Amino acid sequence: MTQRPIVGIVGAGQLARMTQQAAIPLGVDLCVLAESPEDSAAQVIPGVFLGDYRSLDDLRRFAKNADVITFDHELPDPEHLAALAHEGRLLRPSPLSKRFAQDKSHQRRMLALRGFAVPPFADVTEVGQVEAFADANGWPVVLKAPRGGYDGRGVHVVADAAQAHEALALSDGPLLVEAKVPLARELAVLVARRPAGRAVAWPVTETVQVDGILRELVVPAPIGPARRDEALRLGARIAEAIELAGVMAVELFDTGDRLLINELACRPHNSGHWTIDASATSQFSNHLRAVLDWPLGDTTPLAAAIVTVNVLGRADGSDPADGLTAALSDPAVAVHLYGKEARPGRKLGHVTALGDDADEVRERARAAAAALGEPLDEEMP
Amino acid sequence: MTQRPIVGIVGAGQLARMTQQAAIPLGVDLCVLAESPEDSAAQVIPGVFLGDYRSLDDLRRFAKNADVITFDHELPDPEHLAALAHEGRLLRPSPLSKRFAQDKSHQRRMLALRGFAVPPFADVTEVGQVEAFADANGWPVVLKAPRGGYDGRGVHVVADAAQAHEALALSDGPLLVEAKVPLARELAVLVARRPAGRAVAWPVTETVQVDGILRELVVPAPIGPARRDEALRLGARIAEAIELAGVMAVELFDTGDRLLINELACRPHNSGHWTIDASATSQFSNHLRAVLDWPLGDTTPLAAAIVTVNVLGRADGSDPADGLTAALSDPAVAVHLYGKEARPGRKLGHVTALGDDADEVRERARAAAAALGEPLDEEMP
Repeated sequence: MTQRPIVGIVGAGQLARMTQQAAIPLGVDLCVLAESPEDSAAQVIPGVFLGDYRSLDDLRRFAKNADVITFDHELPDPEHLAALAHEGRLLRPSPLSKRFAQDKSHQRRMLALRGFAVPPFADVTEVGQVEAFADANGWPVVLKAPRGGYDGRGVHVVADAAQAHEALALSDGPLLVEAKVPLARELAVLVARRPAGRAVAWPVTETVQVDGILRELVVPAPIGPARRDEALRLGARIAEAIELAGVMAVELFDTGDRLLINELACRPHNSGHWTIDASATSQFSNHLRAVLDWPLGDTTPLAAAIVTVNVLGRADGSDPADGLTAALSDPAVAVHLYGKEARPGRKLGHVTALGDDADEVRERARAAAAALGEPLDEEMP
Repeated sequence: MTQRPIVGIVGAGQLARMTQQAAIPLGVDLCVLAESPEDSAAQVIPGVFLGDYRSLDDLRRFAKNADVITFDHELPDPEHLAALAHEGRLLRPSPLSKRFAQDKSHQRRMLALRGFAVPPFADVTEVGQVEAFADANGWPVVLKAPRGGYDGRGVHVVADAAQAHEALALSDGPLLVEAKVPLARELAVLVARRPAGRAVAWPVTETVQVDGILRELVVPAPIGPARRDEALRLGARIAEAIELAGVMAVELFDTGDRLLINELACRPHNSGHWTIDASATSQFSNHLRAVLDWPLGDTTPLAAAIVTVNVLGRADGSDPADGLTAALSDPAVAVHLYGKEARPGRKLGHVTALGDDADEVRERARAAAAALGEPLDEEMP
């Protein structure tokens, strides 16, 4: 009997959990490096290795069980990943392309060097540097931790020198300062690329963020064909430039005039969750296919209008599972719960609706998400 | 934190395996009663209980871990299921409705009693009874084991008394004799029903069998609206009559003039495998929702033409996984491998293609299935 391929995932959050849905039909065995047997992915995957992703020894012990190693998050130490690769482990994406996503300062520099349009930026350690940057680019500015931030954590919009001082005081290293560019909307491009080079992209997605947290996806993004093609070209060029193996999400600022690259993630990404229910091939399936160097699947959407709304923990700490039957009472909404402990503002699931009419689809997705978690502000566009 | 519901599945074959894909987004924990850790479902579900479904003690120990018990197959002893229910375990479907599917002779009698159209049938233990039946209904006749048969096993088409004698000699109990009715085609109706009563059905499916084994599904079945509505009505009436809780498949003979009920299965069924990739809600998701008495999901198909082809083990015993990258080279085909040991003629997976043109879709599904397993006879319709 042919040995089933084993894909090891560092981290056991909801991305690894959703990858299991794609691994089952492909006959791929997953194993996850989890911190606890109650981690989101550890609940649904038999191959659980308990350990600490911050420990090179744990990474080493974990990696020797897998044919290829990939990632649930951006947090492993780049030095550790380089060591694993040096010892002969197959990491996809590679440590080099992974570093693009891990270090926002490195990412900005490398993208700018290669001629990609990014917002004005600088590395700063003291208030004077922030002030000089703001003199040139205007207040407010955005201060970001180059590593480890997600869902708005580690990101501060500061209006003056005093606020900048506070943000720097809280940080344990240099920060990245960026111009706060005026936005028409935010977009995301999702690309899957095989090591050998062939790449596919899904339709461009509008991402709606509130307080730095992604709340809603709209597919296709309501943009013209020229902007759409520009976004897809950018995604393809970056995938090529970083020699991507796997799935990558490029988050873009659409200023109305042009596209600037905000961030990229070298893994399946929240902006692609709609692909599970509404694309011929999901981002998780194509991620597995890409890291195994297998042919990639079709990325055609299955409906004219698709909306995904994230389920965020309510302020009262209630469990989204309590609202599950209410959410399922709309028969056409696909509900995804992550099995995570409820905490206010935490991403605990998402819902996807698809159909012919964008407004109706949005309404249904928002209603189902509100049955499960914190409702979206009614004044949202 | 809300306790996650635990659904126990007796059996750990491919149906339980595919149920895991549906359990993950719903936040439902599965546990399976498996014979081996290498069983198809045991490879992908953390909750594995090793035991023998023929042992009441094992069933008892298994059942006490789950909130509700359901089934991967028709084989458990009806007395054991009655005992579990008597001891307060929640079985869905109930032992009574399960018995409809488990005992073909009982099924025929009960359906005929309630006025449903079935082929002429009788219970027989000796050749003389078969001859008398054939005198009234003509040769050939079909002899079936009332229990335990599947994929053509336990079913004999016999042309004369000598062949009937052989079949009876091989059997360890009474057989069911049936008229071999002339067919235009075979159809299947798939229904999900909640204990409280609400039911949904998927579009009627044409099932193409070769030597008693299901090879291909065509959705929607190429039949007129009157025949389609008749089939759906039959499915709804039977679900009601047996007080179904879960998913049920009704296999139908379409004689050209009318529909006769062939068999029914009280569980997700091969005839519904297309729903994973091509329906708003899969049969596995609605089975879980039904046995948990949760609202059922929408059964709308996601394309105008859908074809699923089963992957059967080749005569040379080769593993379908060897042909996986070849099958995936058609980006629009969804491939499902079951992780089972390859044996000639064994169901090892399936592929589904969807699109606008039925002929093109069939061609692609057949080509991908042929890359994985035994090709379909080219002369098939």
